[in-house]
Order: sequence, then C-alpha cells, then structure tokens
Amino acid sequence: MPLFEVLSRLRVPSLLASVLWCVAPCLHAAPQTVASVDSPGKILRVSLQLDDGRPSYRVQRLGEAVIGESRLGFQLRDGALDRDLAVLDQHSRSVDETWEQPWGERRYVRNHYNELRVDLGERGGRQRRFAVVFRVYDDGLGFRYSFPQQPGMQEAVIDEELTEFDIVPDATAWWIPAGAPIHYEYLYRRTPLREVPLAHTPFTLRSQDGLHLAIHEAALVDYAGMWLRRGEGQRLHAQLSPSADGWKVRRALPFDTPWRTLQISDTAGGLVDSNLILNLNEPNALGDVSWVHPAKYIGVWWSMHLNQETWARGPTHAATTANTRRYIDFAAAHGFGGVLVEGWNPGWDGNWVGNGDHFDFTRATADFDIDALSAYAAKKGVHLIGHHETGCAVEHYEDQLDAALDLYARLGVDTFKTGYVCDDGQVDRRNPAGGPLLREWHDGQFMARHHLKVVQEAARRHLSVNAHEPIKDTGLRRTYPNWLSREGARGMEYNAWGEPPNPPEHEVNLVFTRMLAGPMDYTPGILSLTGRGGRAIPSTLARQLALYVTLYSPIQMAADLPEHYLQHRDAFRFIEDVAVDWDDSRVLDGEIGDYVTIVRKDRHSRDWFLGSITDEHGRVLPIALGFLEPGVRYRAEIYRDGDAADYQHNPFDFVREQRVVTSRDQLQVKLAPGGGQAIRFVPLDPAPASAGTAASR
Amino acid sequence: MPLFEVLSRLRVPSLLASVLWCVAPCLHAAPQTVASVDSPGKILRVSLQLDDGRPSYRVQRLGEAVIGESRLGFQLRDGALDRDLAVLDQHSRSVDETWEQPWGERRYVRNHYNELRVDLGERGGRQRRFAVVFRVYDDGLGFRYSFPQQPGMQEAVIDEELTEFDIVPDATAWWIPAGAPIHYEYLYRRTPLREVPLAHTPFTLRSQDGLHLAIHEAALVDYAGMWLRRGEGQRLHAQLSPSADGWKVRRALPFDTPWRTLQISDTAGGLVDSNLILNLNEPNALGDVSWVHPAKYIGVWWSMHLNQETWARGPTHAATTANTRRYIDFAAAHGFGGVLVEGWNPGWDGNWVGNGDHFDFTRATADFDIDALSAYAAKKGVHLIGHHETGCAVEHYEDQLDAALDLYARLGVDTFKTGYVCDDGQVDRRNPAGGPLLREWHDGQFMARHHLKVVQEAARRHLSVNAHEPIKDTGLRRTYPNWLSREGARGMEYNAWGEPPNPPEHEVNLVFTRMLAGPMDYTPGILSLTGRGGRAIPSTLARQLALYVTLYSPIQMAADLPEHYLQHRDAFRFIEDVAVDWDDSRVLDGEIGDYVTIVRKDRHSRDWFLGSITDEHGRVLPIALGFLEPGVRYRAEIYRDGDAADYQHNPFDFVREQRVVTSRDQLQVKLAPGGGQAIRFVPLDPAPASAGTAASR
Repeated sequence: MPLFEVLSRLRVPSLLASVLWCVAPCLHAAPQTVASVDSPGKILRVSLQLDDGRPSYRVQRLGEAVIGESRLGFQLRDGALDRDLAVLDQHSRSVDETWEQPWGERRYVRNHYNELRVDLGERGGRQRRFAVVFRVYDDGLGFRYSFPQQPGMQEAVIDEELTEFDIVPDATAWWIPAGAPIHYEYLYRRTPLREVPLAHTPFTLRSQDGLHLAIHEAALVDYAGMWLRRGEGQRLHAQLSPSADGWKVRRALPFDTPWRTLQISDTAGGLVDSNLILNLNEPNALGDVSWVHPAKYIGVWWSMHLNQETWARGPTHAATTANTRRYIDFAAAHGFGGVLVEGWNPGWDGNWVGNGDHFDFTRATADFDIDALSAYAAKKGVHLIGHHETGCAVEHYEDQLDAALDLYARLGVDTFKTGYVCDDGQVDRRNPAGGPLLREWHDGQFMARHHLKVVQEAARRHLSVNAHEPIKDTGLRRTYPNWLSREGARGMEYNAWGEPPNPPEHEVNLVFTRMLAGPMDYTPGILSLTGRGGRAIPSTLARQLALYVTLYSPIQMAADLPEHYLQHRDAFRFIEDVAVDWDDSRVLDGEIGDYVTIVRKDRHSRDWFLGSITDEHGRVLPIALGFLEPGVRYRAEIYRDGDAADYQHNPFDFVREQRVVTSRDQLQVKLAPGGGQAIRFVPLDPAPASAGTAASR
Repeated sequence: MPLFEVLSRLRVPSLLASVLWCVAPCLHAAPQTVASVDSPGKILRVSLQLDDGRPSYRVQRLGEAVIGESRLGFQLRDGALDRDLAVLDQHSRSVDETWEQPWGERRYVRNHYNELRVDLGERGGRQRRFAVVFRVYDDGLGFRYSFPQQPGMQEAVIDEELTEFDIVPDATAWWIPAGAPIHYEYLYRRTPLREVPLAHTPFTLRSQDGLHLAIHEAALVDYAGMWLRRGEGQRLHAQLSPSADGWKVRRALPFDTPWRTLQISDTAGGLVDSNLILNLNEPNALGDVSWVHPAKYIGVWWSMHLNQETWARGPTHAATTANTRRYIDFAAAHGFGGVLVEGWNPGWDGNWVGNGDHFDFTRATADFDIDALSAYAAKKGVHLIGHHETGCAVEHYEDQLDAALDLYARLGVDTFKTGYVCDDGQVDRRNPAGGPLLREWHDGQFMARHHLKVVQEAARRHLSVNAHEPIKDTGLRRTYPNWLSREGARGMEYNAWGEPPNPPEHEVNLVFTRMLAGPMDYTPGILSLTGRGGRAIPSTLARQLALYVTLYSPIQMAADLPEHYLQHRDAFRFIEDVAVDWDDSRVLDGEIGDYVTIVRKDRHSRDWFLGSITDEHGRVLPIALGFLEPGVRYRAEIYRDGDAADYQHNPFDFVREQRVVTSRDQLQVKLAPGGGQAIRFVPLDPAPASAGTAASR
C-alpha cells in the first residue's frame, strides 16, 4: 500500500501528512545546484550541482535544457575523484576584451564571457581537491578542471576522465570514428546521435528543432585528446585517447586540463563564425611573430600522388634540382610565396610507411642541391617549404630535430610540413624497458607533447609548422602563432587516389566539422580535375576555386601541376588573386552537408572574396552583398559554373565574367551539382568617410 | 533464360545482338519528349512527353529530376481526354517585363519567364483539342490547360482533372487536410510526404537534401479549387473540389484553367520572396484603384470572442452607437484608418452558424445609428469597416448584395469584411429543382464564382473586400486590387477560444504555407495575451508586434481592446508606427516551422521594419543590416523579449530600447521561447546620392 494511502487512512492532519510524505523520498536529497552562471547576454545558463557529493552540470539556453545532468570528475589510479565532494570556495568574474590576431579569419576577436570557478574537495579520505572552471559565452561555453598544488597529491595519474555531455534535444550527428586506423581521415557520417558509437571531436549536431551544437576541446596541452563514447540514449562520455603506459594522462600538480567546449547556435553558420576555441586558448606566448608568413604555395607533390613521379630516388624522383627550379620559377612568376618539396631527403626508398627509421632530416639526396635551390628561391623572392615525414618514427625524428630545424633556418625555409603516416593510426614509441616498440595514438598525451615540442623548437628558429597526420587542432595557434595549419581530415590526395574520392558533400561537411577546430591544409585547386590513372575528381572547375575561400587556411596550396594551371589560365587567375589572410570572415548561409557560402575581407587590401560550394545537388542561392563597403562600386570578378556544368558529366563547363555591384545588390549564385562559385570584389571608388556609428557596436 | 543469354549462346554478332536486344522493350516505345523549355537562367527545365498519345510532363532543376513523369489531362463527362493525342502545334516565347503593384509586399515586380504552348488534339474520335501552356521562371513554374473554340465541343463538363505531381526527392510536407469541415482552419501537420492523404494548397515540401517546394494554383476563376490526393509513393493527384452538381466544373469553351504552380527554392525564404503567383495572374482589370486604401484598423470584435459582449442584441450587444463611437475616438487618436463593427445588423440573435437566412444587410439594429456613426467617423478621418456575415446562406446574401453595397458606398465605408461560417465546411445552395438545400464546398466552382461576384460588385462601388472563411487566395488581388485581404487559415480568434490555441510554431508555419498564397487578415496584436475566461495566449508581448511584419496584409487589425492597448503603451507604440504598404520585402532567414525574420521597407517613408518570430524554442539570430540604405545612420527602435521572457511562464517580460545603427552593423536578435522581435529603423541622415550601379541589375 503506498505511503500516501496509508497516511490517508490514518487520517493524519494534512500538514503533518505532507511532512511525513517527504520522509521516504527526501532521505536521498535531490541534486542541489551549488552555483550557476549566465552568459553575458543571458542566453546560456550553466549550473553546477552536487548530488550527495557527486558533481554534475547542466546547460540551459533561453530557458530550455540543452545538456541535462552530466557527471564531472575523474577515475584516478589512486581512486575515483567524483564523489563525497563539497564546495570549498567559488568565484565569479566577467571579462570583455578584444584582442588582435597576428593572422586569421578576422583581425579583432572579442572575448566576452562570465566565469565561474568552483573549488571542490573530498570531505573525507585524502581530501583531494580540484576546481571546475566554466567560461560562458553567448554562443557557447568551455569548462576545464584545475588541479591546484595540495599536500596530499603530487601528481595525477588519470585512468579516465568522467566528463559527460547528456544532449537533451533529439539530434542528428556528423562525425568520424575514433580509435580507428586512419587518424581522422574519414568521410563524415551523418547518423542519429543515438547511433554514434565512438567519435572524434569536433562533433557536430543538429537538433530536430534546428539547434546546432558542436562539442570539441580547446588548448590540448600535455594531455590526451578527448574522444566521445555514447552511453545510454544521447549521453556522451569523454574517453581519453589511450597511452601505452596504461593510464591515459600523467601530470604533476598543479595543472589544468584542456577546455571541454560546446558551441551552440541557431544557424549552422553560427558554429563557424564562433571564436570560442581561440578565446579559450592562452594569448600569444611568442611575442613578435612578424616572421610568420601566411602565403600561398605550390609544391613538388601532386605528381607523386598521380604516380607520375616518386618520393623515392631513381629515374622518376620528383625532388630534383631541375624540377624544383622549375617550380620556383613558376611560383615567382605567379606570386606564390613558397615551394614545398617532398622526397628531398634520404629515407623514402623502401617501405617507409610506419617505418621511418631511415629518414635523415639533415641531408638532401644527391640529386637535390638544397643550398643552390635555397639561394635561387631567395633570389626570386620565394621560400622553400620544408618537409619532415617521420613514417611514425617519432623519437627518431626528435633525435634529429635540432639539427633539422637549424638546417631549415640556415636555408631560409620559413615553414615546414611534418608527416606521421602510419599503417594503423598509431606511432612508434621506444620501450624504455627495452623490448618491442610501444604504439601511441596520434592524439594521446605522448603526441600532444611531441607536436608542441616541434612547434616550440620551430618558434625558437622563426619557423612555422604545417602538420599532416597531426593531432587535432584545439586553437593552439593563438598561443603559438607559428602553428600555421595542419591536415587532420580527408584531404585532396584522396581525389588523386580515388578509393573512393571525396564526394562533393565532404567539403561542405568539413566546414561544419573539422574546420571548427581551425585551419586545414586541404590543398585545393586541382584544375585538371583528374587523379591517378585518369580518375575523375568529383568537382566542377569553379568549385576548386571556391575552396580557397570556404576552407580556411593561412597557407593555401595550389596543389595541381604548373602545366595544368597554364591549361586553365582563366580559372587560375582567381588562385593568383585570392588572399590568404583576413580582416573579417562571415558565413552568409549554409546547411551542414548541403551547401555553404562564406565571404572574407582581405587584410591587405579592400578586396572581398566570396566562396560558395554545394553537395551533389545544384543550388540557386540569393546572396545579398550588404557586407561590402556602403556607397562603393565594386568590380565583381565572378568565376562560376557554366549553365550546363555538372560535377559528374560536365565538370569543365565554366564562366569567368565581370559586373559592377554595390552593397545594395543581391546576386543569384547558381551552383551546379557538385559545383561552386568564387568571386573577387575589387573596389572601384575610394573609401567613403565613415558614417560614424560608434554608438552601435 | 534471359534474351541476352540466348543471344550470347547463339553467338550472334554483337551489333546484331544489340539490335535484336531492343526488339522486346522497344515494341512499346518509351515516352517521347515532344517539347521542352528552360527557365531564363537555365535553372529549371520542363519537358512535355507523349507516351503512345498520353501526355505527361517532367521538371528538372540544375539537371536533377524534381517532378518525375506526371500525367496531364481530364476526365470529362463525355470521355477521358488524356490519350490518343498528337501535337498539333507548338509556340515558344520569352517575356521580361516589370510591373507596378498599387499596393503590396513590393512596388515593382519582375515577370521574367519562358513560355511553351503545345496544342494537342485527339487523333481519332471527336478530335477534341486543348493546349498545355507552361511558364517557366528561375524560381518556379506554372502550367494551365487552355480549351480553344472548336467544332466538336461547346462546353467542358469536368469530372476530374488528371494532373499529377510526382515528387522525386524524399520530402517532408507541411499541410492541412482538404475535404474537412473547418475550411482551412487547421494547425499545419508536418509529416513525411508519403503519409499525406488529401491536402489543400499551398502545399509546402522540403526534401531531405534541403530543396524547398510549394504546390499551389494561380488565378482560380470560375473553376473548382485544386486539392492534392496522394497516390503511390510521393505521387500527388489533382482532385478538384466537388460540386453538388456531381461534376466538378462546367465551363463553356473557350476557357483556360487556373495555373498549377510549383515554387522551387534552395532556401525556405525563397518560397516567400517569390512573385510567381502574382505574375501568373492577369493584370489589374479595374484601372485607377487609388480608392483602395491599405490601412490599419481596430474593431468591435475581440470583446465578443472573449464572451464579454455579444453579436446578438441585448444588454451585452457590442455594436452599439456609444461603443462604436468610443472605438472611432480611439482610432482617430492613434492613427487607425478603420473601425470594423460586427453584429451591427439584424440576424445575429439566434443560432446563425450555417443558418444565415435571417441576416439583413441593408438595415442596422436599433441601437446602432449607422448614419450618425458614419458621419462621426468621417469627421474624425476614420472609415467604418463593413461586415457581412452570411452564415453560409450565400444566395440570400447575393439577393441583397446590390443594396447592401450601395448602403456602404453611401455611408463612406471603404472596406468590408465578409464571413461564411458554416457548421460543416460547406455553404448552402438553393436547389433549382426544389427540395432540400444543396451543399457546396468553400472552394468549389460555385464559391469561386460567388467570391468574384462580390469583389466585382464591390469594385463598381469603390469598395474593398476582406473575406473570412473564404476561398483560398490564388493571387487575384493583382487583377482585382480591391480584394485586399482574407482569412483562410487558423487566425487569432482561436487564441481567444483556446481549443486549443495556436502554438507558437503555427505562425511560423503560416509564413511558409498559407502566406505563399497572399495576404492574410490574421488580426494580430493581442497585447493582453489573454483569451476567453483568462486563457493564456501562447505568445510573448514582443511577438505580437513582430506579427505585423511577418504576416503580410495590406490591412492589419489591432485586434485587442482599446483599454488593453492603453495598459501596454510602450509596446502599442510599434503598432501605431508600423507601416502596412511596402516598397520592398525580404526574408532574411528562416526555416519552416522553426523561425523566420522578414524586413520590409515602408512605401511612404524611408523607414524599414523588421519582424522575427520563433516556435516554442528560443533563438539567437545574427541579422546583418545590409538591407538599410548605405551610409545612413538609423535609429533602431527595438521591441524585444526581456531576458527572462518565455511564452509559457513569463510572457510580459519586454524591453523597448534604441540604438543607432548603419547598414554595416549586425544585430544579435534574441527571441525567447515562443517569442519575437520587432524593429523600426528610422533614418537620421538624408538619402545619399546614388552610387550609380545601373550596370549591376
């Protein structure tokens, strides 16, 4: 018989009944909100709760639950740190500052958040302590754990982080598998969130009601990358990338974890325009970085992916003095700042994949006169771009790192590309106990340390880094602006190999997934639209140009062969003209996996550039030009799909045309199936005097 | 054994094999394209086919199928007219013209299409003839059947129209049921297209790949309205609204059917911004229509829906001289052009629903001094707005129509509202053979004729019409600009009745469904947010204001009681200021049923107005103000949801604030759950000289 019925029959007076009524359920108290913090515009609210000493958090947006009660804490080697906790202290603060990027999608970044720090401590036992710090923005939030110095704990050996994200609204997810062999290089899956097993971040969601979410992390320093494992329903659990040591992370106290981030927007474009990840990173640690050079570059590269030339020495060796000289000439003639050369050093001759012990980073092969080429490049105003493929022999590379970087510095190389091609997604690590090599994931603590070491050593020599098969981007370019770009997704080379090539929706998906992390060296611009053995690349000609605007990187490759550019001079002109460093960037419109239109303003001129790409379906997108400077006429140099263009049947149908437009005009941007459009807007009038709207920001 | 295998075994030479291979399938020839036409920008292609004499059509967009092979033709009383047809003649032409609306969402409308007319005739039998005429625009198409004068056919008795729409991409539909009792007044259903039984138009679809479609009709004159019945899969069949006569339509030749229309857009807003329906109607047939007055109005109306007053005579009769005088005073004081009075005439005292034989449209009730009130209104610069509720006694109304309209003309009434409230969705029609009354649907040929008769008779007297419980809008306001507005969807009165009220998504749905047809007299502005018996209306305060911009009508009611407006003077100010006639209108962003933001420029000033509404979820929408005149500062008068607003728990949390902005600014428009935002932009600077971009249109 239920308690209430018992009480009724006993005719207990009603007030007394209510008191008694609470006895049974109230023995276990409900989770208690111990602190909460709103975003500056009161759009988001984050609450920290304790449920009998167990911490959790919730996120509401405009009064609606987005993240339901989700655990916080750790499984440490010396016992779980997620229970019997009490609040020791709490602090709030508000920050509203604007900082300047040395390079980037936009020059000025506003950092406007409310912060809540809650210090928690175990009530009994070893009385271990840590804090949870929330920074809440109008368009997202980050939180991290902070381990202060404390008597009972010198270091943390983390077996698992217990952070959860219980997504409340029913959602569709775009994701790539974690714990899989090809280090991020997958086509994005689109599935119900309820069907995701284990995924990497950025992890992008759209709810049935049109709310867009992305989970990622910021400032991944000396820690393991966070994967997301789905539990019950739509509950996601942090799962740290493993280590060969057994634990996931080992750190001496004090230390902070990376920020766990959640971007939230009503529009898909809002995710892309968000500065959350950069804002949560530490400011520039390098001081004057005028030696970091955003640039376009070409390279001795695509011919190897076509199987026309080889990385290995011999009659087809690509990295020869004569060949590279030809590329330098082409770069100088067409305004490219760099020439990448792969295969320039010994070690490529055998099977080097996952087997990089033979790479020598301090000597060139005999047919590559690196000193003469560097001098020749310098004379022509071009930099050689270095290349260090490790074949996953990471410590073998570290052994040579100082000498290798000294060589580049001496030669005038300003940027180098690294590579970590393995056969199973894991790199080699020497076994300190002897015995067979250990294996480490691309995004575990071991590799987080390695990548940052390379970047820091490079910075000492004024070199910039472009890492391929990298650890994921978490915004460290803010702190280390010489970390220019990286790969970390399925790039253009899959279109050379064709197994299978990247379907048109892939590049649209990238904008709303991978690109949320930061710049990607996708290596666009294959105007020949042809891969290995004549394979067709699923793209129109105009689309290849649009990629320079839609897929942001401060270094952009013109990846095709020089002779192919000369066959498509009309289209190539856009690649010559397009900027790589921006005053401002804005997503005008887009839907994940369907289409996207982005505009960016050149940092070094008054030009604007527009890029628009679609999936396998043609589109007609009305684009209002209100982003242009008011009262100024612009020459719109339009590079578009021809009327009969189609990525499968008629990819080369292409039109270059000009119109005069102003900020009041609206364009109908027509994209062929698998197509794209690129526009350069060149001002024809001087800049008008400002209308003076200081009051309006 | 398959034929091919037989041939292979016979070792027939391969060329011969291919020829033989065709024998079996080719005995029945494939449908043959007899003509096709592209849209001006080569975005759409429509093809007409004959398959052994049976006509069908297909629609492709940017090379992809949108409408698969779909039948054309008629089931006539004297035999099907859809087979054994041959092409007699065909004509193409291109039109690019711009016409001016006397009032509307925009002043100038471009009408740019390619037309294909194909004349078909029966090869045998009675050799009946008809033509199919396609007009193909970049954002949609219309087609209609044309029956020319011909020897063997004096009239057409149409039992059914056989037009089909076979939607190719998998789609979700937003729709209301046809053949149902409450004449269009339903909440919109959102279902897979494959689950729709029988629906009205406009019928809105979104494909899985983000293509937006709407099926409707234009220029429904002397014909039955088209319903859509789903057949197999995603194939929709036209099903004409029935007639008590048994047939659906009876017309003497020559005649044209209404246009069957298909709007196609990559964005939801593109459907709303399309001018297709208006363009397919005939130009203004009334000549000078300077006597048609877009205006805001108030009315003796909401108090009856609240059950505070009655239409019927007696102590609670609303339409009294004193009460109306109070409304006239309020209208004059606050700039309203009209005062609607319902219940002013005899006939309301009993049960008049579906039983309107007692209505007298030529006399006022004794307590309503119509002459004195008209004179009083005229003195105050206000018009009385007439009202004719028929209670579905349509011919009873027609009998009095001349006298009733003469009365209004004499009294200076410039607009009148009609009503057709029945108890089962059908109106009464006298039985020419005697006997019980016949019943006719609201959108059959009988009512199509009736409504146009009222509009034409009204035009003769310079009166404008606002029809409630009407036939659906098909753009006839272009031809008859005195057909100002109408109802034809679930309006505000459901929020008074609360059975159930309109949930927030309803008004968002309306924008992308009902409003595609034309203006709606939704009667917004219930600032009390309270219905009958204190029922809460599911809306925030700011949202009520936003409805004036998002739900277009050239006559907009301020539907609440005057005393309620005086209780909310801050919010009411927007209703006083908002325009009703526009130079231009534009959907800035929106998703069907989720949210929408629309901006419109006043036709009689340089002011712009913005309205944004959401469903039950809060939103934060980035709104670039590029639509404003460049180089001009504007005072943005912002009427927004307060930070804690919520349509369920805190609907009155509201802020009115001002900022100075220019076309370069971007606003973060924050909408509460069930909320909205309204902004008036008032220029602070004179209009700058034009930058002169004639070349850019």
